[in-house]
Amino acid sequence: MAEVVEGSSEVVVVRNKQVVLKDYVNGYPKESDMVVTSDATIRLELPKNEGGVILSKNLYLSCDPYMRGRMNTTSKGRYTSSFTPGLPICGYGVAKVLESTRHEFNKGDLISGLINWEEYSLITNPESLMKIQHTDFPLSYYTGILGMPGLTSYVGFYEICLPKKGDTVFVSAASGAVGQLVGQFAKLSGCYVVGSAGSKEKVDLLKNNFGFDEAFNYKEERDLDAALKRYFPDGIDIYFENVGGNMLDAVLCNMRLHGRIAVCGMISQYNLNQHQGIKNLVFLILKRIRMEGFLVIDYHHLYPKFFEMILPLIQEGKITYVEDTVEGLENAPAALVGLFSGKNLGKQVVAIAHE
Amino acid sequence: MAEVVEGSSEVVVVRNKQVVLKDYVNGYPKESDMVVTSDATIRLELPKNEGGVILSKNLYLSCDPYMRGRMNTTSKGRYTSSFTPGLPICGYGVAKVLESTRHEFNKGDLISGLINWEEYSLITNPESLMKIQHTDFPLSYYTGILGMPGLTSYVGFYEICLPKKGDTVFVSAASGAVGQLVGQFAKLSGCYVVGSAGSKEKVDLLKNNFGFDEAFNYKEERDLDAALKRYFPDGIDIYFENVGGNMLDAVLCNMRLHGRIAVCGMISQYNLNQHQGIKNLVFLILKRIRMEGFLVIDYHHLYPKFFEMILPLIQEGKITYVEDTVEGLENAPAALVGLFSGKNLGKQVVAIAHE
Repeated sequence: MAEVVEGSSEVVVVRNKQVVLKDYVNGYPKESDMVVTSDATIRLELPKNEGGVILSKNLYLSCDPYMRGRMNTTSKGRYTSSFTPGLPICGYGVAKVLESTRHEFNKGDLISGLINWEEYSLITNPESLMKIQHTDFPLSYYTGILGMPGLTSYVGFYEICLPKKGDTVFVSAASGAVGQLVGQFAKLSGCYVVGSAGSKEKVDLLKNNFGFDEAFNYKEERDLDAALKRYFPDGIDIYFENVGGNMLDAVLCNMRLHGRIAVCGMISQYNLNQHQGIKNLVFLILKRIRMEGFLVIDYHHLYPKFFEMILPLIQEGKITYVEDTVEGLENAPAALVGLFSGKNLGKQVVAIAHE
Repeated sequence: MAEVVEGSSEVVVVRNKQVVLKDYVNGYPKESDMVVTSDATIRLELPKNEGGVILSKNLYLSCDPYMRGRMNTTSKGRYTSSFTPGLPICGYGVAKVLESTRHEFNKGDLISGLINWEEYSLITNPESLMKIQHTDFPLSYYTGILGMPGLTSYVGFYEICLPKKGDTVFVSAASGAVGQLVGQFAKLSGCYVVGSAGSKEKVDLLKNNFGFDEAFNYKEERDLDAALKRYFPDGIDIYFENVGGNMLDAVLCNMRLHGRIAVCGMISQYNLNQHQGIKNLVFLILKRIRMEGFLVIDYHHLYPKFFEMILPLIQEGKITYVEDTVEGLENAPAALVGLFSGKNLGKQVVAIAHE
């Protein structure tokens, strides 16, 4: 419950807990790179004479690997700007509209999009926000299966990998927000699918909950090339790339002719000042491989098509989604940092409030 | 003139000069890895009771970078088998049919395809051979502009790079058998094109003969990233990759959104036991780049379409082709080895005989 700082019968000013970036980050992010502070206050009323503004109560926050890039000092070459030290960080999330002078959003609406990591926000740049139409699903799903990671897996698998029945599919970081869906899409498409993850618990999840044909713990494999040959004696048609580094090098040696690699992320590299060199790119030629990077922001127009497919699948129980939820903003820095050591089991969500 | 070893009025046996691989090659190939020998003889008559055989007099041989791979001890992961030490090496070439029991080929036909590096051949596996239909062009062109390198440049540029008018195009190894054509295709498509090569003479060729907008000597650039930024202040839409290594890493930093990289070759890497690591692949994501390897052997069905385009262009003088021809099999090892230090100025050809 927010602490009322100042209040009358109609308007209150409350403390607004925030997760603030202390300074730009070098190497692996630490909890101490952020501070959870209640120094700020917010007036729970829209400023007078200011149009196009939304006051939101924030509910769920999404922890995503790409956010690491926004902690760098420079945004050169990136598609997002850097966070500003001293201000709250920002990411995809779900919120409730308390007040709005934007005609698209009304009081009581539930919205998803880019939201500051704080309890309440005065949103002046609502370009990324969408009104949540289907409220008969867990609202946190809009940070995952029904949000950016869901569309990412859909676009990457169907639009970039162009799967055919019988294709052999490998997914790295397979129990994560995106990977778990790619694996299930692959099964729905009649593919053979193997996933890698970083713990026994995750491997069990892949096989028992998501229906992967096989799964392995990459941390227990001395020789990734040998591991891939064990599961793909005839090679890999489709690789859904989430990690980069050594795994990518091993995969390149095991691709089949005319294979496709959707480059979604390279989480193993984001905290390195100098990325690992990939030595096996000559297989792109030898095996005639297409390797294609993509960003979900180029595919927002596909949300309706994606929803048309995914909503019935969820309702009919044909697809499942595992979230790892921490409660409270005070636990948010650890949750975000934990992504990079693989602490999360499934999609990492922070619940600030449940409406 | 071949030395007659044994002969009657109708049949002669002659010495058959050959370029023989001594042993598998490790690292950079040397002239001494091959031996030019006249130990073998050949009877200039087809063996009796043997069908489907061609006796050829070999005219022109093509020196191509991919041949380096065939000198390795293992053909693992490759699309071609290794050469056999003690036997002549083999490559694309042009020959004249002396006798044939294959119905597709008749005495006097000119043919192109895979041919042993020797003066005469008894060809028992003519699957790669095509009859040369258009003999009003220099026959050596069938090792280059009208042969495998020509189709390679056509396929790589038009089918893989999907050029649009106004695109910015970068070609490495740009004065070579493939690069010089890619640059000219780019100009014909209304693109801005820059090439890199390894000498002043080659750079001049690019600008003065092939119409590249700009060209530079990569050996004189301390900082390839800075060189590319000089010629592509707004980035590169299309990269036609012939070299790999440091150049690829520099290009990745300079690609534009939705750029395309056709991976045709990586000549800088073929003689290394361990390939250089490519560190900037994260730009595939940030810039949504498609990087696609290809091999011309998958596109032989496009020869008619390619000829339909290229033959008039040559006849009308709208496209030009520079060859670097050495005379005689005894100079062939040096010519082949010279590819890897960039000695050739244009397409490297070996002329054994001019019909």
